[in-house]
Amino acid sequence: MVKESKDYYLEGASVPETPLPGEPPKPWGATAVMGKRLPRVDAYERVSGSAVYPSDVNLPNMLYGAILYSPHPHVRILKVDISEAEKIPGVHAVISSDSKEANLPWRNAHSGPADKLFEKIIRYEGDVVAAVAAETPYLASDAVRAIKVEYEILPFVADERLALAAEAAKVTPKGNLVAEPEVYQRGDTEAGFAQAAKVVEHSYRTECELHTPMELHGAVAKWDKDALTIWESTQGVFAIQSTAADVLSMPLSKVRVIGNYMGGGFGSKLQAGKYTVIAAVLARMTARPVKLFLTREETYLSMGNRPASNMSIKIGAKADGTLTAIDFTVLGSGGPYPGSGTGLVNYQASDLYLCPNFKSKATDVYMNAGPARPFRAPGLPQGAWAVEQAMDELAIALNLDPIDLRLKNIPTFSQARPGNPPYTSTGLKECLVEGAKAFKWKESREAAEAFNRTSKHIKRGVGMAAAIWIVGGGRPPSTIILKLYADGSINLNMGASDIGTGTKTIMAMVVAEELGIDPALIQIENADTGTTQYATPSGGSKTVPTESPAVRDAAIKVKQQILDLAAKEMQLPRDDVIYKGGTVVSKTDPAKQKRIVDLGSLKRQGVIVGVGYRGPNPEGKAITPFAAQFCEVEIDTRTGELKILRFLGANDSGRVMDRLTYDNQVHGGITMGIGLATTEKRVLDVNQTGKLLNRNWHDYKLPTALDVAMATDSLPIEMPDNEANTTGAKGLGEPVTIPTAPALANAAFHALGVRFYDTPINPPTILARLASAGGGGK
Amino acid sequence: MVKESKDYYLEGASVPETPLPGEPPKPWGATAVMGKRLPRVDAYERVSGSAVYPSDVNLPNMLYGAILYSPHPHVRILKVDISEAEKIPGVHAVISSDSKEANLPWRNAHSGPADKLFEKIIRYEGDVVAAVAAETPYLASDAVRAIKVEYEILPFVADERLALAAEAAKVTPKGNLVAEPEVYQRGDTEAGFAQAAKVVEHSYRTECELHTPMELHGAVAKWDKDALTIWESTQGVFAIQSTAADVLSMPLSKVRVIGNYMGGGFGSKLQAGKYTVIAAVLARMTARPVKLFLTREETYLSMGNRPASNMSIKIGAKADGTLTAIDFTVLGSGGPYPGSGTGLVNYQASDLYLCPNFKSKATDVYMNAGPARPFRAPGLPQGAWAVEQAMDELAIALNLDPIDLRLKNIPTFSQARPGNPPYTSTGLKECLVEGAKAFKWKESREAAEAFNRTSKHIKRGVGMAAAIWIVGGGRPPSTIILKLYADGSINLNMGASDIGTGTKTIMAMVVAEELGIDPALIQIENADTGTTQYATPSGGSKTVPTESPAVRDAAIKVKQQILDLAAKEMQLPRDDVIYKGGTVVSKTDPAKQKRIVDLGSLKRQGVIVGVGYRGPNPEGKAITPFAAQFCEVEIDTRTGELKILRFLGANDSGRVMDRLTYDNQVHGGITMGIGLATTEKRVLDVNQTGKLLNRNWHDYKLPTALDVAMATDSLPIEMPDNEANTTGAKGLGEPVTIPTAPALANAAFHALGVRFYDTPINPPTILARLASAGGGGK
Repeated sequence: MVKESKDYYLEGASVPETPLPGEPPKPWGATAVMGKRLPRVDAYERVSGSAVYPSDVNLPNMLYGAILYSPHPHVRILKVDISEAEKIPGVHAVISSDSKEANLPWRNAHSGPADKLFEKIIRYEGDVVAAVAAETPYLASDAVRAIKVEYEILPFVADERLALAAEAAKVTPKGNLVAEPEVYQRGDTEAGFAQAAKVVEHSYRTECELHTPMELHGAVAKWDKDALTIWESTQGVFAIQSTAADVLSMPLSKVRVIGNYMGGGFGSKLQAGKYTVIAAVLARMTARPVKLFLTREETYLSMGNRPASNMSIKIGAKADGTLTAIDFTVLGSGGPYPGSGTGLVNYQASDLYLCPNFKSKATDVYMNAGPARPFRAPGLPQGAWAVEQAMDELAIALNLDPIDLRLKNIPTFSQARPGNPPYTSTGLKECLVEGAKAFKWKESREAAEAFNRTSKHIKRGVGMAAAIWIVGGGRPPSTIILKLYADGSINLNMGASDIGTGTKTIMAMVVAEELGIDPALIQIENADTGTTQYATPSGGSKTVPTESPAVRDAAIKVKQQILDLAAKEMQLPRDDVIYKGGTVVSKTDPAKQKRIVDLGSLKRQGVIVGVGYRGPNPEGKAITPFAAQFCEVEIDTRTGELKILRFLGANDSGRVMDRLTYDNQVHGGITMGIGLATTEKRVLDVNQTGKLLNRNWHDYKLPTALDVAMATDSLPIEMPDNEANTTGAKGLGEPVTIPTAPALANAAFHALGVRFYDTPINPPTILARLASAGGGGK
Repeated sequence: MVKESKDYYLEGASVPETPLPGEPPKPWGATAVMGKRLPRVDAYERVSGSAVYPSDVNLPNMLYGAILYSPHPHVRILKVDISEAEKIPGVHAVISSDSKEANLPWRNAHSGPADKLFEKIIRYEGDVVAAVAAETPYLASDAVRAIKVEYEILPFVADERLALAAEAAKVTPKGNLVAEPEVYQRGDTEAGFAQAAKVVEHSYRTECELHTPMELHGAVAKWDKDALTIWESTQGVFAIQSTAADVLSMPLSKVRVIGNYMGGGFGSKLQAGKYTVIAAVLARMTARPVKLFLTREETYLSMGNRPASNMSIKIGAKADGTLTAIDFTVLGSGGPYPGSGTGLVNYQASDLYLCPNFKSKATDVYMNAGPARPFRAPGLPQGAWAVEQAMDELAIALNLDPIDLRLKNIPTFSQARPGNPPYTSTGLKECLVEGAKAFKWKESREAAEAFNRTSKHIKRGVGMAAAIWIVGGGRPPSTIILKLYADGSINLNMGASDIGTGTKTIMAMVVAEELGIDPALIQIENADTGTTQYATPSGGSKTVPTESPAVRDAAIKVKQQILDLAAKEMQLPRDDVIYKGGTVVSKTDPAKQKRIVDLGSLKRQGVIVGVGYRGPNPEGKAITPFAAQFCEVEIDTRTGELKILRFLGANDSGRVMDRLTYDNQVHGGITMGIGLATTEKRVLDVNQTGKLLNRNWHDYKLPTALDVAMATDSLPIEMPDNEANTTGAKGLGEPVTIPTAPALANAAFHALGVRFYDTPINPPTILARLASAGGGGK
């Protein structure tokens, strides 16, 4: 039923040259595997249901945890009475801010300052008040309901725009300003604007989006004496290990975190949750495993969001389109925690287009609402919403094609990073030019305009936007271990999580490329702190450029050892033998060959072990992916109905690894961007209760298959970045979602002649804008 | 509840010097950890029941497998009717020699030639005839009973002593002689005997012992598309992987074998069973996981034995005790399979005592009885039973103390190995001399003799025996990976199984010794082909000497990297920094110190990875453990009751690693040897049916707590063998059981004046021997 080992390798296949030990590898030339469309190596497991996700983990004797969340956005807890809950048969543990466990510290890089696991003052609806462990999930829910809490209801503020008003409720004793606004500037913006032929200026706003991973947040915790095992749906098992060990004052070696599969993470699963630690504490108290997964409502309340951004942008250019100055401001809020309300929102404004005079100011405030967390390209889609529409407006003002305006201002170095490092590669121009060509940009624009001249209610528009992403180069550390078995098949050990983005598939392809093996024959173990190698969390679009060079290094080390063994067995000088797929051949006498499966010394030693490391990035250089997206929409001006006819994503993310995964990412990113543009919006009852009003999939609208583009195309700009790393890959997962919303807004403007400064663009807002603009712009 | 990281290390603890990269490590001098009594690192898991043994594995949707075993020792299967079995609701698969799956090959290094999984001619009671998978174990049993088989009953032979008789049934078409008898000789035995002052000669027999691991044999098999996972109670996961992949024609990377814990293995679990493959086949047929564990009866029938040995020995010496010649013959049977009936039975005769003239002849025959498998020190306890009693007899004939006779003939090189390699260390003399001293040998012998002079029915005796073991040096390959976490705690990744012998504990101690860390802070993952490094099976007393040098190498590589990082951070030359427990110190300015937990660069890179390998053994040398045991018994000549008053095991196994584990091994080995000497014996119905008559714990007698010595002492001869490997350890698990039975027999002779040439020594045989010797010897 399975191939014979002799079929694992294409005999004499074209594989890259094997460097001598210590020598750096050469960049891949023509590739046999990379860039092809390889279905996921774990497609069967994912589709058949045999993959065990953390939420599938059910252990013998397991209890179920549940959490009582604060129903109010700002309260002081006066009294928690757990006596009725404790009396329920089958309830084994109840903890609250009165328990000694409540004194555990709560430290989390993304969520806030050092504080306690259970606080007496609660600053957002959905923070934890108490928790229980019981025999069934239903009993656990009953017990949560049986906990009586006396709250002192405190005044709240649940809109970042109101947080700095004098009459606003105070979220912290020190007030609502997180810190003095962050100002960044270069050059002289006043002088710049003075040189401009045209200046456009407007305010923009993106609404707050809630994290909606398919698999809910949660963990299963189990103790063996002083050792803790956690199964968690996470983007980084080592990050969970680190937080759990820190909060519980344990050695890292006593915390094992397993998350071989996980059902989607877009930033909210980069970190441990309070639920992680609560599950561990309940398990320790009851001496039984505890499973604690949040409901969708609980996830929406507490598992983070892309915060709303209130931006203003002023941008000026000479008549030929040369930018002279940009002024950008943003106000945002990470909720009750500092530091995540405005992060990177200014980045696209500051670094995508060449502009010597730049100034930005970011104001981060506290408010009583669920906390922000990293959210696919944190900050960038918000900033792009403003920047890319402003560029569109400026192009119109200058009477330039929007693409030509952008092409006029393409940088070759990073203006916003210290030292202005040159880019290792920049495909922004190619994204714009080749994307426009593939989308038939000019023809489509003209066709839409022609259509609109005769169409009464139905209007078409074509728009575009571009993007930059900051950490797409990846970075050390990463360790990869390959075991080559005596039959030539391979085991790959990697700490990184595959968050649904095809990491495992891509790494199998790297091994296959280097060794000439069938990628289906590579067994992969990943995302287990106990048994796999160290890796940083999968996020920031850095997983492929971080892990793939380490995988390549490990594969090369395997080849070198194959050559060592074969040279000895063949009684040839080491420098006379070269590796071809599955076979070692003499350079001087090609008739002398030896297959891996025939290596007696390999049989005796059992395996060859290749340990690969991620090398450092080139010094003084910036590694950055670029993107451009093109969109055509059709809008019914009577109903406000918006149809997305076409989308094209053109990306420079260095080498194309798995083309199928690549296209998946483009589709997924555009879909998510369409959500930001058209459907997603957290609605808080700002005036009366501060509570979240849309806390389920009925009320919180995600784009469905019917809402996304009828045709979406991916156009990879194949530019292997061999200066960046040894596989030439740059990040892809985030740039694909950054330009989507403004591309759509620009298309809507092209259709209607009215601009949508605020998300979402949906029938009510379309009709409202048309009404305020006098019943239709053009 | 757990220590702060600053307490993981004893600051500035004495740890071994760190060699520079590439330099060999120096032997350990004074040790801080090795040789101490460390309780098992996994004691809690084992005692609390939280350890998951393969037989504990229960998967969702799992079926139960059962096997129909041949009830006869020799049959031809004429017809198998599975129709009734298939009709039973809840039965999902039935296979037999008529199924296409029966054509799978059966290859197993220890059990036989390439053959089929289900054969048409069955050559022992207990070979497989058919198998089923059903919803419950009870349904599976019902289904097995519902299979109707028509057998042609063939003549059988079930006693190796009858196998070569002309009228014996033929086990194979070519007859019952496996091969021409194996003859080994050196010197000239005839000339040697001619020089002897005394020659003794007698025949000896040891009975066949059945394997009785606490956890039964079995496996759980699960498929994910074309990938197979097996949980098996095994001594070597990579050996199971290899057999399963071979038989099922699969790549090794598609077979993952897991056996983190296992409940005892004494050689019978070095290999896969037919049940392993049958579980996999049934799981594939039903697309559900299948659990197939044998019952105790089934284990006794088919899971192997230490075969009976029929030996004769003739031994001569000069008047001063110098041996002049030994002639040794043995007849044995591996049952229906070749090669395991007589292996190594001659080894103790050929190599323990200096003797220039030696000859041995081994005759291996087929018979229709359950197959032999490796059984703790395969061959040696049988050979020792003859050799050590013959030496006792010879000492009496020469009027020498038995210890003095042995001391006269101590070798410094291996006579039986090609090239007569010198031993890296030989502590045989120390075992004899220091053991005798600790046991008060002379005084005890005299006291027993004095006691017997006045005692009427109760007789006391003191005896001893010595031993050699062949593969106690260990050997490559082994790969070990250590991860040092940023808080200084450690993860150890090792492929080897801990078969209950404390491997994990000892390896933790090696890391602790080298790094100065608390061994309790070392997380250990082992025995999983998917996630741990390659190791050969745990057996042959080679696990500690094989794995521990690789662990030490990995720990040293971790230290070297700690020093690299610390030197950079401390801005000191690399050769100025030395590692002390948990801290790096400047040689020239000891005030300059940096703790591991304070290394910023370690925090940034997450972990330090140390990859350790087992180096080669010294060329042209033999590495051998030695042992001597001393025993005092008391026998009631009226009832034949035997009380074992005292036992002492003195061992040269190189360095003492964990003293507690060391003593456990001595106790366990002596207990097992007492089983051979006094209780264990496979009883076959040789004349009528050929069937096994004692197939449960009632009828097959194992020594219980009341049967073993009232006082057992362990005397380690601490002689680190620094020439053998970098930890100085030699094997221990097997030498501890080799001399036990003859030491007891020699004590019984000393008590009664009659010699027990055959096992077992029990009330009936004692009374019979006393009767035949005239009612009591002395």
